[in-house]
Amino acid sequence: MPVPAPNLYPPFNIVRLAYVELFVTDLIKSRTFYVDVLGLQVTHEEADRITLRAMEERGHHCIVLCEAEQPSASVLGFRLYDDPDLDKAHDWFQAQGLQVEWVERSWQGRTLRTRDPQGIPIEFYVRMDHLEPIHQKYALYRGVRPLRIDHFNCFSPNVDEAVAFYNSIGFRVTEYTEDEETKRLWAAWMHRKGGVHDMAFTNGVGPRLHHTAFWVPNPLAIIDLLDLMSTTGWLSNIERGPGRHGISNAFFLYIRDPDGHRIEIYCSDYLTVDPDLPPIKWDLKDPQRQTLWGAPAPRSWFEEGSVFAGTPVREADLKAQPIVAP
Amino acid sequence: MPVPAPNLYPPFNIVRLAYVELFVTDLIKSRTFYVDVLGLQVTHEEADRITLRAMEERGHHCIVLCEAEQPSASVLGFRLYDDPDLDKAHDWFQAQGLQVEWVERSWQGRTLRTRDPQGIPIEFYVRMDHLEPIHQKYALYRGVRPLRIDHFNCFSPNVDEAVAFYNSIGFRVTEYTEDEETKRLWAAWMHRKGGVHDMAFTNGVGPRLHHTAFWVPNPLAIIDLLDLMSTTGWLSNIERGPGRHGISNAFFLYIRDPDGHRIEIYCSDYLTVDPDLPPIKWDLKDPQRQTLWGAPAPRSWFEEGSVFAGTPVREADLKAQPIVAP
Amino acid sequence: MPVPAPNLYPPFNIVRLAYVELFVTDLIKSRTFYVDVLGLQVTHEEADRITLRAMEERGHHCIVLCEAEQPSASVLGFRLYDDPDLDKAHDWFQAQGLQVEWVERSWQGRTLRTRDPQGIPIEFYVRMDHLEPIHQKYALYRGVRPLRIDHFNCFSPNVDEAVAFYNSIGFRVTEYTEDEETKRLWAAWMHRKGGVHDMAFTNGVGPRLHHTAFWVPNPLAIIDLLDLMSTTGWLSNIERGPGRHGISNAFFLYIRDPDGHRIEIYCSDYLTVDPDLPPIKWDLKDPQRQTLWGAPAPRSWFEEGSVFAGTPVREADLKAQPIVAP
Amino acid sequence: MPVPAPNLYPPFNIVRLAYVELFVTDLIKSRTFYVDVLGLQVTHEEADRITLRAMEERGHHCIVLCEAEQPSASVLGFRLYDDPDLDKAHDWFQAQGLQVEWVERSWQGRTLRTRDPQGIPIEFYVRMDHLEPIHQKYALYRGVRPLRIDHFNCFSPNVDEAVAFYNSIGFRVTEYTEDEETKRLWAAWMHRKGGVHDMAFTNGVGPRLHHTAFWVPNPLAIIDLLDLMSTTGWLSNIERGPGRHGISNAFFLYIRDPDGHRIEIYCSDYLTVDPDLPPIKWDLKDPQRQTLWGAPAPRSWFEEGSVFAGTPVREADLKAQPIVAP
Repeated sequence: MPVPAPNLYPPFNIVRLAYVELFVTDLIKSRTFYVDVLGLQVTHEEADRITLRAMEERGHHCIVLCEAEQPSASVLGFRLYDDPDLDKAHDWFQAQGLQVEWVERSWQGRTLRTRDPQGIPIEFYVRMDHLEPIHQKYALYRGVRPLRIDHFNCFSPNVDEAVAFYNSIGFRVTEYTEDEETKRLWAAWMHRKGGVHDMAFTNGVGPRLHHTAFWVPNPLAIIDLLDLMSTTGWLSNIERGPGRHGISNAFFLYIRDPDGHRIEIYCSDYLTVDPDLPPIKWDLKDPQRQTLWGAPAPRSWFEEGSVFAGTPVREADLKAQPIVAP
Repeated sequence: MPVPAPNLYPPFNIVRLAYVELFVTDLIKSRTFYVDVLGLQVTHEEADRITLRAMEERGHHCIVLCEAEQPSASVLGFRLYDDPDLDKAHDWFQAQGLQVEWVERSWQGRTLRTRDPQGIPIEFYVRMDHLEPIHQKYALYRGVRPLRIDHFNCFSPNVDEAVAFYNSIGFRVTEYTEDEETKRLWAAWMHRKGGVHDMAFTNGVGPRLHHTAFWVPNPLAIIDLLDLMSTTGWLSNIERGPGRHGISNAFFLYIRDPDGHRIEIYCSDYLTVDPDLPPIKWDLKDPQRQTLWGAPAPRSWFEEGSVFAGTPVREADLKAQPIVAP
Repeated sequence: MPVPAPNLYPPFNIVRLAYVELFVTDLIKSRTFYVDVLGLQVTHEEADRITLRAMEERGHHCIVLCEAEQPSASVLGFRLYDDPDLDKAHDWFQAQGLQVEWVERSWQGRTLRTRDPQGIPIEFYVRMDHLEPIHQKYALYRGVRPLRIDHFNCFSPNVDEAVAFYNSIGFRVTEYTEDEETKRLWAAWMHRKGGVHDMAFTNGVGPRLHHTAFWVPNPLAIIDLLDLMSTTGWLSNIERGPGRHGISNAFFLYIRDPDGHRIEIYCSDYLTVDPDLPPIKWDLKDPQRQTLWGAPAPRSWFEEGSVFAGTPVREADLKAQPIVAP
Repeated sequence: MPVPAPNLYPPFNIVRLAYVELFVTDLIKSRTFYVDVLGLQVTHEEADRITLRAMEERGHHCIVLCEAEQPSASVLGFRLYDDPDLDKAHDWFQAQGLQVEWVERSWQGRTLRTRDPQGIPIEFYVRMDHLEPIHQKYALYRGVRPLRIDHFNCFSPNVDEAVAFYNSIGFRVTEYTEDEETKRLWAAWMHRKGGVHDMAFTNGVGPRLHHTAFWVPNPLAIIDLLDLMSTTGWLSNIERGPGRHGISNAFFLYIRDPDGHRIEIYCSDYLTVDPDLPPIKWDLKDPQRQTLWGAPAPRSWFEEGSVFAGTPVREADLKAQPIVAP
């Protein structure tokens, strides 16, 4: 069986995905994209770094943009439940033979940095500065009205291994795609915070970040964003959508930032907090798994992604082919 | 100049497009499509004929489905303003050398049947039986919640000629696509009732009916229809969309009935009643004219259409090529 | 029968309502309301006058705000079809014994000013400067995303007389409320451009302007406006709604500008172009006529309105009482 | 300080609210309300009992309707994390001197029944039969398209005590209303599953069930329900709304079932999984706490509720008065 049984008592308690740091090559251009087009709120700004939050978030940042020579994803951050979880995480990763270190992160308390076995740089923290609520300051809403960071999706050269590892630290599979011939996982969606996913893995050259997703109020916010982007010079940054995923049932849009980092805009998945909720299985050959309404994704969506800074990639073990737009 | 000046004083007063009669090969299957999926209301039903209206319409029918050996569009119907307009229309068409006849149409008063110079069969009437209002009988709303028939779109082998003719009977161009090289019209949208169009023409093998459009309340009704069709066996009948047209600014979806007759679901164009409203010109090479958000239409959308019963077609005079999905 | 038969051949051709000039006591504050809150676009601005248009309008103005000592409605403007209609209107009003004059209006061609028999100051024009289309400049959309001016509603001390007069110049009743006891009209909705109304009359101290309405894309735009107004200091300017009118089936919201001029935000009525469309009758005692969902309107909504500059008012002839919120 | 510090390590792990059993006096009429109007799905049906689930739920029931002589709320059910939590809960409640018993509940595994100190009958379970997913069977969606049960709200004669108790079993306050004079809690919203609340308490004669809430996709689903109820004989069952709560930021509607049991339809609150998320405080005198847009609630909303079967009620200790509609 490709999907591991839920791990009800993980070694430490991860609350949710929390932030991503992206290296971008033109901070001013990226600021326009994330602030003026998407509508994220600037919480700090200096010469080579901008931090952002979405409208219902009270933590200081969900995206950190840093100017760099080359674009990449620098690190994925996860919130832990309580201080002891940090030490448990430290010891557990160390016991797995994975390198751990305590790092300084502005506006955060103690922060543990490590890499998962695929090499993805990840961080754990418990404390982050709280900012005042702005979700009812409706004059600030702009762009797609982003409410919160929702999930990460990563290319993995071996999804079975990635899933087994994240399952061991408490992520539970909610939906997955299996290659019927090899019985290997093609993709899996895994959650901590009670939606379809905090983290997903898709078969491909990796590890690479496929996309970071933001939750919005309803499909009309996504239509508004399409209208805005297509009439303000961002037409070629629209990659795929709008549509409804078979998997997760989400209404989606995929767009690319000025460096090609992919952002998903997303609404309407479902509650998954029951620990025995049976995962939903999709066949790799079922085109409605990708898009319920039948339109295949473009090739770029299957092939392009953001490398993680300082992290080599390798070919995928599984060679099955998805259905792409001709 | 390819677009004729508005004809403010046409020979008779056309109020709006009103109905289409479609020949279908399996009336039961078509009934499922138009009634259970789209949500049109049956107003009369017999062995080989069904009449339908949309939710805000009080006239007896906007679609007449007739079972036939071969699928085709039988006739396009237009409402005239007052009884004298019928006689004026009769005399005018006769004076053009076009064949006219008075025909019996159930639930209609005097009905004039003729063909436009391209051969499209058209009918004019003034009186149609009124049914009780149902637009506030919300328990009846189903499917895409169709509110009213909105427009026809036809392939024409010579759009310049088609536009000149319909302009002469009072249709005014609101938007058009010009081939920059030949200065010929590629497509034109012409209205009577105050929206972007009652009738549109697109360059192609013709005359053929490209589609019949229905107006719906908002984009979410279209998303609901996509969800419904894609999970009830109608996935392959979804042809194009959802998207926003550059032309008309409408949010759209194109679907195909069981015989391939194309239906557009449509909302949010704009008011065009000012008789001096300048038409909006689009370049044939501008992909946003088709879809503001950039996605090209599939080849079938450019090539397939419904023949008019008993009406031969010919190749288009203009050979320019649209941008299609690869 | 209280509702006059449709007048199919009026003495001149009115296309639609077009603009209102409002006298306001603090132009800067009014600008904030109409531009920053509602989202209308400034088309001209000087010390004591601002002109505005909505997003799909190409005419220069639908609202003219003028600073004045006292707030009032200065004039209601209507678009005529063609130049000869101006002269026909001139002669017709003169023949009725109503005072007419040609006035200079900036950005308009020849403009005829008169008063209806109740004393409402009205203007007719054919030409207005066209501005470039902005309905696809989505970066400009703000507030409630107003698409176009939709209608005027006026208190009249004798609705039967008001309706008879406007019927004589071609307005057709689409819906009306009758007082069952006296068989007098309590209110009536009359159109020219093909929706439920360009002009409506409600029984009350008059003539006064009850409200000017703007058309918006869908109910969510109205919810957005409520969120914005209630969190930016405009809470007390929200008067009634959101709700659905039984009459017209419109989803509505009523708000008040800084001088108390009432604005309705409105979407989803229906097409009324058929000249024989039977009017819908509502009983004055039916509370769903006001609000389909049952909530009565506040007393202010029945009692308050904008006087027309220089126009005396009188008590209503009909003393029936509407249902108001307790 | 009125709000207790979050209890990060409760004695047992409650996942979420799960079901309510309602006693109704006319099962057929209630079925019409919950199934045909609201759109819940029947999962079992016998002479005197019907079980229902919402569209994204896979557990067998979220509402159990039982025919009875008198209407009342029979019990509120909560899902625990894992089997050992049931025994921990058993022992903990027993240690508090509260009566506990194991009860048989159809389609559920071991079920523990007890009462909270106010007397509210509650049940805990871990296993419930899973049904096949229907969230993508779009042909089944009806009414308000209910996606899941969201929360309970109860009148409590002493909100401070109720909050202290539920905090001791791990519910965390997300928002609350304080009476500024007495520094007593007027109302509090407490969650387990990551939204604003699974359980809320409001000052009043109690304990009584104020309402059970269902989550829907977006505000348009609520507008659809209003249109449906107001035109199918359910007008007087609409009690309050639509509106946006200041507290929770939710778009809401309150309706009453045939026995007066109150149902809230609800969407768009926010994620609360961070265990140190600061609660938001509202002043009892702030009218926007109830309705961001300013409209006060009707008196019935403050005074009426469902008694719990066999549970005496008492007057509230706190006598402060809310703002009600005049």
